[in-house]
Amino acid sequence: MLLCDIGNTSYHFQSIQTDYKEDVNSFLPQSVNQTVYYICVNPKINKLLIDLDNWIDVSQYIDMKNYYETMGVDRIIACEAIVDGVIIDAGSAITVDVVKKNIFEGGFIYPGTVAMAKTYKDISSALEYPFNFQIDLNSLPKNSQDAISYGYLKTLYTEVNSLKQSIYLTGGDAEKLLFIFPNAIVEKNLIFNGMKKVLERVL
Amino acid sequence: MLLCDIGNTSYHFQSIQTDYKEDVNSFLPQSVNQTVYYICVNPKINKLLIDLDNWIDVSQYIDMKNYYETMGVDRIIACEAIVDGVIIDAGSAITVDVVKKNIFEGGFIYPGTVAMAKTYKDISSALEYPFNFQIDLNSLPKNSQDAISYGYLKTLYTEVNSLKQSIYLTGGDAEKLLFIFPNAIVEKNLIFNGMKKVLERVL
Repeated sequence: MLLCDIGNTSYHFQSIQTDYKEDVNSFLPQSVNQTVYYICVNPKINKLLIDLDNWIDVSQYIDMKNYYETMGVDRIIACEAIVDGVIIDAGSAITVDVVKKNIFEGGFIYPGTVAMAKTYKDISSALEYPFNFQIDLNSLPKNSQDAISYGYLKTLYTEVNSLKQSIYLTGGDAEKLLFIFPNAIVEKNLIFNGMKKVLERVL
Repeated sequence: MLLCDIGNTSYHFQSIQTDYKEDVNSFLPQSVNQTVYYICVNPKINKLLIDLDNWIDVSQYIDMKNYYETMGVDRIIACEAIVDGVIIDAGSAITVDVVKKNIFEGGFIYPGTVAMAKTYKDISSALEYPFNFQIDLNSLPKNSQDAISYGYLKTLYTEVNSLKQSIYLTGGDAEKLLFIFPNAIVEKNLIFNGMKKVLERVL
């Protein structure tokens, strides 16, 4: 079974044998002959795939009543992958979603590491520092780099921990956030796992 | 006694009789004849004032050993104004500083409301919403506007409340944050109060 997670920059393919990415701007989806089960957050590509019979949109198999209309399908599929816990998907945004007994309880959106570093820099050049992910979150900062790192990371940490759930980390910056959430489970394949779980119910 | 808090956009004057602002780009500080006690976070204006004998920099009277070198003098002076508590100064950045028994314990920097709204918008046009300051912080969001509002505000709320201190709100967005911290004390004159307290010790 060939699975595909389509974002704003790449087609990410995965099967038992393979795991590879193709550029959204140059890859031709009609070049694939086998059946591809996909989710897609890219509106332009979505239009392209609707006419290809071997590309099957997995989102059609999801019971949407537990989610909300403008929620990204990648967040939804990640929620489908777990039974209980908090999913932190750290990409251009950091989405934090809570699932209890297979039901989505709600979630929030926090800026990703690149976006937030730019935010501080744009407020003042005096706040242009890389984040210190190894900051001691138990003591209040007394220097500028830690003052922004704590502002960005401790607030997220305190809120997520207050949810008192198991934490699943996924997305490109999962490893960075592992410094902040050392007991989290890093699960790079959460999206593909969610797709498989949805497909197992219907195929 | 004429006090002046100089920022990046204005000279803010205050005395018992008066409270007014002048534009930093057009106002001539040499036009003032009386003694002015000031703090200034604007490096260009700082250079201008050093040659004017009737402009007295209040920061010279502060015992800096409790603070750190790159900390803004406005944050320092606000800390001087209180004995115990958390100061949330909501401007282009939101600074959160903790004072215990007159001693600065540390603090952190979070993006201001305008900067953070731009951050979400720049991540995705799907996240371009005004923040909902009246959001229910006790339930996880199930719509996009609340998902970013909760991401911005609940994280700050949970962290600040975990400090278990009285909260002083100041800065241009103090009233907005009062929705989130309804028990906070709004103190518009925290900077001027801090200047007066420092001057009382030395004059």
